[in-house]
Amino acid sequence: MDTMEPAAKRDLLSTEDLDNDSVGNLLELAAHMQHRGPQDQLKGKTLGLLFQDPSLRTRVSFEVAMIQLGGSAIVLSSATDVYAFEAESQTVMDGVAEEHVKDAARTLSRYVDAIGLRAAIRTGNWEEDRTDALLRAYSQYASVPVVNLQSHMHHPCQALADIFTMRQECGDLAGKTLTLAWTQNPEPQSLGAPHSLALLAARMGMNVKVTHPQGFELDGEIMDSARAHADETGGSIQVMHDLEEGARGTDFVYARSWRSLGAYADPDRELLLKRSLDHWKITSDILALGNNAWFLHPLPVRRNLSVTDDVLDGERSLIYDQAENRLHTQKALLVSLM
Amino acid sequence: MDTMEPAAKRDLLSTEDLDNDSVGNLLELAAHMQHRGPQDQLKGKTLGLLFQDPSLRTRVSFEVAMIQLGGSAIVLSSATDVYAFEAESQTVMDGVAEEHVKDAARTLSRYVDAIGLRAAIRTGNWEEDRTDALLRAYSQYASVPVVNLQSHMHHPCQALADIFTMRQECGDLAGKTLTLAWTQNPEPQSLGAPHSLALLAARMGMNVKVTHPQGFELDGEIMDSARAHADETGGSIQVMHDLEEGARGTDFVYARSWRSLGAYADPDRELLLKRSLDHWKITSDILALGNNAWFLHPLPVRRNLSVTDDVLDGERSLIYDQAENRLHTQKALLVSLM
Amino acid sequence: MDTMEPAAKRDLLSTEDLDNDSVGNLLELAAHMQHRGPQDQLKGKTLGLLFQDPSLRTRVSFEVAMIQLGGSAIVLSSATDVYAFEAESQTVMDGVAEEHVKDAARTLSRYVDAIGLRAAIRTGNWEEDRTDALLRAYSQYASVPVVNLQSHMHHPCQALADIFTMRQECGDLAGKTLTLAWTQNPEPQSLGAPHSLALLAARMGMNVKVTHPQGFELDGEIMDSARAHADETGGSIQVMHDLEEGARGTDFVYARSWRSLGAYADPDRELLLKRSLDHWKITSDILALGNNAWFLHPLPVRRNLSVTDDVLDGERSLIYDQAENRLHTQKALLVSLM
Repeated sequence: MDTMEPAAKRDLLSTEDLDNDSVGNLLELAAHMQHRGPQDQLKGKTLGLLFQDPSLRTRVSFEVAMIQLGGSAIVLSSATDVYAFEAESQTVMDGVAEEHVKDAARTLSRYVDAIGLRAAIRTGNWEEDRTDALLRAYSQYASVPVVNLQSHMHHPCQALADIFTMRQECGDLAGKTLTLAWTQNPEPQSLGAPHSLALLAARMGMNVKVTHPQGFELDGEIMDSARAHADETGGSIQVMHDLEEGARGTDFVYARSWRSLGAYADPDRELLLKRSLDHWKITSDILALGNNAWFLHPLPVRRNLSVTDDVLDGERSLIYDQAENRLHTQKALLVSLM
Repeated sequence: MDTMEPAAKRDLLSTEDLDNDSVGNLLELAAHMQHRGPQDQLKGKTLGLLFQDPSLRTRVSFEVAMIQLGGSAIVLSSATDVYAFEAESQTVMDGVAEEHVKDAARTLSRYVDAIGLRAAIRTGNWEEDRTDALLRAYSQYASVPVVNLQSHMHHPCQALADIFTMRQECGDLAGKTLTLAWTQNPEPQSLGAPHSLALLAARMGMNVKVTHPQGFELDGEIMDSARAHADETGGSIQVMHDLEEGARGTDFVYARSWRSLGAYADPDRELLLKRSLDHWKITSDILALGNNAWFLHPLPVRRNLSVTDDVLDGERSLIYDQAENRLHTQKALLVSLM
Repeated sequence: MDTMEPAAKRDLLSTEDLDNDSVGNLLELAAHMQHRGPQDQLKGKTLGLLFQDPSLRTRVSFEVAMIQLGGSAIVLSSATDVYAFEAESQTVMDGVAEEHVKDAARTLSRYVDAIGLRAAIRTGNWEEDRTDALLRAYSQYASVPVVNLQSHMHHPCQALADIFTMRQECGDLAGKTLTLAWTQNPEPQSLGAPHSLALLAARMGMNVKVTHPQGFELDGEIMDSARAHADETGGSIQVMHDLEEGARGTDFVYARSWRSLGAYADPDRELLLKRSLDHWKITSDILALGNNAWFLHPLPVRRNLSVTDDVLDGERSLIYDQAENRLHTQKALLVSLM
């Protein structure tokens, strides 16, 4: 991604859309953005944001990013502001969907300069949801850049902020160990953030230890891609099923809950699986197993259920820097795309 | 409407609020707006937008219009942001309405520079709804301009964009034929767009052929007004009940579904009426009956139910230009009003 | 509150957070703001607004205030945009709340320059709700200024606008009489506005006559504080249970309904209490008992139930100035805080 010239239409659907140079340029531009006040680079430009579920960080960080760049964001929540969209092509629209994504995306492309989409409505079938069909349809039909604000499979904006945050503390991440740890949570969570982080951390040459209970495996194709990246960069991907083993000797503990793909169609089965998993919680004892490890979490977090207060509020916690860095990395992204 | 000087309070409740010169000036200003970048004409000014139902095009095009003019829009959705309003005067407010339109409109007039209202809540009684009482009440009490963002009876902003779009392709519209065709749709739709287009097209001197199934007549008073306009301009208004007859030899096929006034109080009866109307669909065969006709639709559209993909995506389709022209015509309108 | 220098973090949770000089400076700055056009003082700055219930005046006046100062507001409605928040510390978050206020406030502090909160969700227990725990938690954890947009106990922004409005008509308020009158309303209303006005009016040296039916007492601690203020300023606080007695000889009749603290946990009991209270309505006869009295109401108002049309629309009504003055006083506040 060349950050210097006006872009042809480019999307950010997953971290895989960025080559290594683009990632490097974005992180560099973000570091530059971090220390600048309000600018006018996107004056008169608008970013359309579509949300299918509630959002605090993503929504506010994107809105503020546009404002600080002199532009504006327009927020549409599908619960209240717009109707249901049809994503499949050639279908006879005699159901509940009042508009086809083709028309919504092409219309929005006449009004706004980029589109952000958080696609959260699930079919209950992982084979279907893992295609991110709605997001792909927006990408296909829009003539302006489309940014993934978290989908079933990916959350590239979160991963960029995560990598930026770790680099800020440690510089080059190659050879560093990142523990990606599943934690307890009554609410099933998207796999987007762990997927995107595993992919991008592997590309940074990190040794990624994914640790989770049986039944909470990440998507197989994502894991294969991450392993292929690691092979190229000299990093590694390991999977384990023990929190202590995962944390031992690590440089970064990254906690996050995610839903069970095995129980994807059956929330009750997921609840059953989780019944005996209360020990999947990051405590100061777990963190102490690391190599003076830093702690990260993309938030929101269930305090004292997923992670204890002393870890979240401790000296090694980077959670608020991580949240703040959403702003800086997204400003870099927006300037690159629009 | 003199677009050069700051306006005294003027509203746009229907196309009838604009004299012929005003229409001409607006369309000319819109053509000028179309080729200009961001401006500062409305710097520090705000447009308050109230929606009683979901909206994509209207909402985003008005927000972007304000932003591109240097101003801002504030969006209030009555479903979530504000409570119910009382429109009737002298009533004792012991019901569900927490605020009178008089107070809401006068208060908003102290804050914003213009008000846009989409009034969509129906009483179920056409004689009542056709008075557009809520919109009229806002107009009566507000001291700033009030713009109709679609009411039961009118959708002037859509009609302005429609006329602008047709003129862009064909120049002077006098003597051209416009077929306003009812199409199948499971969801009852507002009559605002067809009403406003019939009125304005007649004023342009077009020959308007309204074609729809029995039971889907447009409002009688609207038709009378359109005929009176046509008499003045040398245009004409015809009503027919056959899609092929409507399309034959026409210059523009404008498709749109609208609710049955006969079944207005009874949605089940409307569904019954619609049961055998699946042939009210614009196909390439229908379009081919025209005189190398252009195709228009205000969107959203039920693909392959109301109109087939090949028409919507074909070379003669103007649907996205039409959507885009909402932006240009509304920028002209806002500059004229505020 | 020194309005001249960039502020260290200061909150406005209640009028008690402002010393007398600060109140004076704010009102003076507001008078100055009232006659100025759009400015750039808050360029690139953002105000985050969180609402737990619908709002017209507060929301629009704050949004417009930011826009007229060159900044922007970001509105989050908890009903649709964000999830439930936990306010209690050290709790295990295994319930419905997905995020702790600590994390929300600290995250928002990284994005926005000030936070406004309307906290409206009640526990049903007045001893608990009167602590304004959610608002206090935001204040505790945010590193940017927090503004109370109405809580269970306080509505300082309304009181500032009220005092500003009365001063505009009468200059110095010391020695003037203000009747704070309960009125009928089917919907239980927050005590924030009457509490804040009683406190601030007493500090202005006004003679405050609070009149309400038995069972609708204001909070005891608020009344004690108001009396202490009155003792200092030479004002007075009187409580009575008769509307005519309250209005007799007064300079200002300020009408407002508020909920019964006695029936706080039991809405049905409040409805029962209200059954025979329809005479608690401001009519022109009541207003005529005053000393050519002005009429105020914070709106929304139930016309002809709480107050008759002739009073609301009469020559002595200040209700729209009062609403407008929200804008001017809040602009002064925002410039002072940010």
